[in-house]
Amino acid sequence: MLSQKDNETLCRVGPETPMGQLLRRFWIPFLHANELPGPDCNPIRVTLLNERLVAFRDTDGRVGLISNLCAHRNADLFFGRNEENGLRCTYHGWKYDVNGNCLDMPSEDEDSVFKDKIRLVSYPVEEAAGILWTYMGPAELKPPALPKFEWMRVPDDYRYVSWNVQDNNYAQAIEGGIDSAHVNYLHSTVDSHRPAPAGAVARPGRGGEGGQLGSLIGRDKHPKLFVKNTDYGLLIGARRHTGEDKDYWRLNNFLMPFWTTPPGRSMHAFVPLDDFHVARWSITWQADAPYSAAERAAMRHGQGIHSELEAGTRSPTLPYMPPGHVPTHNRWNDYQIDREMQRQETFTGIKDFGAQDYSIQEGMGIISDRSTEHLGVTDRGIIAMRRMLIDSARDLLEGIEPASAHNPESYWVHGGQTLLPVDADWEQAEEVTKAVTAIV
Amino acid sequence: MLSQKDNETLCRVGPETPMGQLLRRFWIPFLHANELPGPDCNPIRVTLLNERLVAFRDTDGRVGLISNLCAHRNADLFFGRNEENGLRCTYHGWKYDVNGNCLDMPSEDEDSVFKDKIRLVSYPVEEAAGILWTYMGPAELKPPALPKFEWMRVPDDYRYVSWNVQDNNYAQAIEGGIDSAHVNYLHSTVDSHRPAPAGAVARPGRGGEGGQLGSLIGRDKHPKLFVKNTDYGLLIGARRHTGEDKDYWRLNNFLMPFWTTPPGRSMHAFVPLDDFHVARWSITWQADAPYSAAERAAMRHGQGIHSELEAGTRSPTLPYMPPGHVPTHNRWNDYQIDREMQRQETFTGIKDFGAQDYSIQEGMGIISDRSTEHLGVTDRGIIAMRRMLIDSARDLLEGIEPASAHNPESYWVHGGQTLLPVDADWEQAEEVTKAVTAIV
Amino acid sequence: MLSQKDNETLCRVGPETPMGQLLRRFWIPFLHANELPGPDCNPIRVTLLNERLVAFRDTDGRVGLISNLCAHRNADLFFGRNEENGLRCTYHGWKYDVNGNCLDMPSEDEDSVFKDKIRLVSYPVEEAAGILWTYMGPAELKPPALPKFEWMRVPDDYRYVSWNVQDNNYAQAIEGGIDSAHVNYLHSTVDSHRPAPAGAVARPGRGGEGGQLGSLIGRDKHPKLFVKNTDYGLLIGARRHTGEDKDYWRLNNFLMPFWTTPPGRSMHAFVPLDDFHVARWSITWQADAPYSAAERAAMRHGQGIHSELEAGTRSPTLPYMPPGHVPTHNRWNDYQIDREMQRQETFTGIKDFGAQDYSIQEGMGIISDRSTEHLGVTDRGIIAMRRMLIDSARDLLEGIEPASAHNPESYWVHGGQTLLPVDADWEQAEEVTKAVTAIV
Repeated sequence: MLSQKDNETLCRVGPETPMGQLLRRFWIPFLHANELPGPDCNPIRVTLLNERLVAFRDTDGRVGLISNLCAHRNADLFFGRNEENGLRCTYHGWKYDVNGNCLDMPSEDEDSVFKDKIRLVSYPVEEAAGILWTYMGPAELKPPALPKFEWMRVPDDYRYVSWNVQDNNYAQAIEGGIDSAHVNYLHSTVDSHRPAPAGAVARPGRGGEGGQLGSLIGRDKHPKLFVKNTDYGLLIGARRHTGEDKDYWRLNNFLMPFWTTPPGRSMHAFVPLDDFHVARWSITWQADAPYSAAERAAMRHGQGIHSELEAGTRSPTLPYMPPGHVPTHNRWNDYQIDREMQRQETFTGIKDFGAQDYSIQEGMGIISDRSTEHLGVTDRGIIAMRRMLIDSARDLLEGIEPASAHNPESYWVHGGQTLLPVDADWEQAEEVTKAVTAIV
Repeated sequence: MLSQKDNETLCRVGPETPMGQLLRRFWIPFLHANELPGPDCNPIRVTLLNERLVAFRDTDGRVGLISNLCAHRNADLFFGRNEENGLRCTYHGWKYDVNGNCLDMPSEDEDSVFKDKIRLVSYPVEEAAGILWTYMGPAELKPPALPKFEWMRVPDDYRYVSWNVQDNNYAQAIEGGIDSAHVNYLHSTVDSHRPAPAGAVARPGRGGEGGQLGSLIGRDKHPKLFVKNTDYGLLIGARRHTGEDKDYWRLNNFLMPFWTTPPGRSMHAFVPLDDFHVARWSITWQADAPYSAAERAAMRHGQGIHSELEAGTRSPTLPYMPPGHVPTHNRWNDYQIDREMQRQETFTGIKDFGAQDYSIQEGMGIISDRSTEHLGVTDRGIIAMRRMLIDSARDLLEGIEPASAHNPESYWVHGGQTLLPVDADWEQAEEVTKAVTAIV
Repeated sequence: MLSQKDNETLCRVGPETPMGQLLRRFWIPFLHANELPGPDCNPIRVTLLNERLVAFRDTDGRVGLISNLCAHRNADLFFGRNEENGLRCTYHGWKYDVNGNCLDMPSEDEDSVFKDKIRLVSYPVEEAAGILWTYMGPAELKPPALPKFEWMRVPDDYRYVSWNVQDNNYAQAIEGGIDSAHVNYLHSTVDSHRPAPAGAVARPGRGGEGGQLGSLIGRDKHPKLFVKNTDYGLLIGARRHTGEDKDYWRLNNFLMPFWTTPPGRSMHAFVPLDDFHVARWSITWQADAPYSAAERAAMRHGQGIHSELEAGTRSPTLPYMPPGHVPTHNRWNDYQIDREMQRQETFTGIKDFGAQDYSIQEGMGIISDRSTEHLGVTDRGIIAMRRMLIDSARDLLEGIEPASAHNPESYWVHGGQTLLPVDADWEQAEEVTKAVTAIV
């Protein structure tokens, strides 16, 4: 559990809050690059960390992310005209470049210096791996380098990225992302919680990566969780006894401030849009081959960790964002739950893998009341993650910058799994290091 | 009128409020029994007295009504799997029985005693007369017996029960239920307010029960109201002179804490779902014969005090409840008011009898501001009802339990009507007692 | 910019606020007269200056505007029966005349004097120029005469009037109405902000009236604004050099407390419905001929300053108003913006002229935060208007009545345009007086 005070510290992300300031020390993915498909394309509404912004791509292809309200008299620049390297307000023609500078103020005299005094809030944007990233930290700070994820270095067609909005605070979404224990239930079959007969092979749900090792999940229903501090955040090990001479270890990562990795080549970012909405980014990739068109189509229709999205729909509760990011299995249709399927086949009766998570995370209430929780042995990673975020936010108030933000090299990890001798020292084991860092 | 302070005391029903505590001393109807049609059927969302709960029927047929949030980390148990005498959370498989006990905690070691310490909020449920009832009082109190309504003792097919949600506080709905004077207007014909020619027979609206006596309503447009305290609450007599040697008396009851009876074999309960929504239960019955299939179909389509309901719709303002209880004549379509009918035929132009009441009760605002009222001679029953509820709530704060909650036998009454000599002492009259207690 | 305190004073319009009291000193248009088409027609919901009211036309054709809640027990009189010179509450038949007097109280004895003590809030209504006007000032004050607008004196078929709701505070709508500078951008073509070649003729947008003079707008992109106090409010002059021996002057008016005039025979009123919604009234007229049926149809479909409206729709955010006043180009469909048209043709890509304004005014947020503005040389009229409203509201608190409310003759003005010698004293120029007062 958390006190109400700690819970507020964890969950509130506005510019004036401790956590809001911490999050603003890290690069944040906010749009697919192709949501701004070309020079002078349509501007896009962005809500990020409780701020309303407009993204646009200028004539030279540069991307701007600036305050949505014109400095003159608050006209919404989303309706602005994107032209000749600047976004021009439709009210009186004030024109801004990607850095928020006012380039033109046709309502004033030609020799006026008024426009030189005007600067909109703007955040630097980088484009990498088909994603637009921004750094919302103080303007006087030089942004660090982008995190060096493995998936950022593979060719574009080896990678598939999607994002969708959820109606809940970001922190309870991160908790789901590092919760190694819930795989046996939420994403699994109806009988996954029963003691497995000796030697039986559990059927992993769609979320669990397959392979020989994955089939060992069912051998031990009571995984023990262990947590190790790392340069990027936390490595969380879940140990399951197999009944043989080796233990099966699943390895999840929490990467500051909102990244999580299930075992295998997939990753999530849970980016706070505001206190009440989170963007769930899902990235899957292959090390050695492009995805086929069929594989891409399947992911677009919700395969694996990706969710099928409603074309053209804006969130009823957060209209200040681009359309097309509301899942088809959503809270307004009870995630299209099929109770008969829940009786006969899967634990939830919810077909979409991501929506299984949404049903939990949105069901907690917009901001989960952690003062009433009863945490168990499988929650060690979650406790450590909360602590790391809260402590880092408080450290920053005292001037201590988060080290992970300046260690992009350390982000070259993914989730993994391995076998270790019973009672091995997992923190020192070479197999662990290999499992989470190597491209195999 | 009521002071703002008294109004708050009357209307607020959360667990910490005086009225909330009083209401929790009584049995409360919350679902049709067949909304949980059989063992291990789908769980149902329930909002009751500002609390969010999940109802489910277990493998042995017992009904549970428990907190909707798993004690572990707040997953919504509405999405839980109903299996083998327990509702299992889909997040990590914690399983609860109908009493809120944690039966299984597969994420912990098999020898863990953690689960023995976990107990969800749960409320005892009884099933009677096709209705699920709960008692939300303190766990240390032994619940009293169910109230002994006449309609609970007739065979099931002699009875018809429906319930629907209204967008207003419960108290203004009760007021409508005991308001004997409004029958002449709201539920009646366009000329009901005109002085009747001597000897004329008024056309009663659909709500007034027919018969010889009912036709006397129109003889006196200025009924005098009288109130008598009873073991169950209040008996309210409305006296109308007939111009002959006997007075016509209509007899309504208010039964603590939210039951009302129009004359005849029909009854309402106005159950607070939260401060802003009330469930209107409508019960009609016959003493001596089952309803025919045609009669049931007619009631399903809105005949009498029952309202036609939108299949599958959840309330836009209270989604945490089961679908199918929003009336087809509702505030979003102005109750399908037909102004031409209002000009030519009925006082309201609203076809559905219940919706005539909704138009009044929802139109007052979600919580009526009683500080601006101007009460008249026909409001005596309403004044007494408010006083009884407020005083009982304050008594309870001082440890005085409501006697009516422990007097289930006294609930064997219904509304009635009778003739008494002019200026008779109605409180002592045997005819009155007979009219409200006898099955005739 | 304005301080937060001044902004609150400017924007809040409830009965207890300084601005609310000021606005209640003026006649306010609130419905088309034909929205109450005849004796005993349907009552209509009205929200005005944060008050909920019901409008009805009685048997003798008089219009009442009274509190929407019955004095008895708060039943909504919108559902009342309009009959025999009074609106009768459907709950217990209390009946009110157009002055809020209780005419009948059938639930009380015939000799009761209770009804004589009941008086609903009611406001006097006048009908002129096809519009219903009300005066919401203190009952003890004698209302002044209606303002004497030129368009009130022309025959009815020389005039076209429409009104629609906007989702923003009234003050930012007024600002748009007197903002002479935005015509060059918001309502114009894509290249309107470019320096015009010497002697070139700009293409004015649909909003700019045509004619020889209007074509001079493009000669000077940096108009200088001048403001003159008048008996009715403000005359705002926008001077543009033409490159020849005369300056081109455009003349807008702000008429207390919410009227604005573009040049030509058109006028707006921006009537606060509540703090968050404004009714935009649009009036166009001709001096010498009726509008043809084709011209009326065109205006009904959005020509000129009128907006096409959705038949039968109520505002999702303000349901307590009559249906049929939501524009078809609205904030929920991004004003049907066509980005390709924005690239190629017009500055906004929004076809409806009024919706161009809505996109700005609603885009600012419901109440624009004026503490972050950066005002320029073209904002002089806006600054003066705000100051006049705020000062007048504060004066009234000290007992100083607004003089303009008592000077209806001074309202015989419209917007205009003229040529004056370079550096002429515009405030004294006879041409200016003629341009804004003469019917030519």
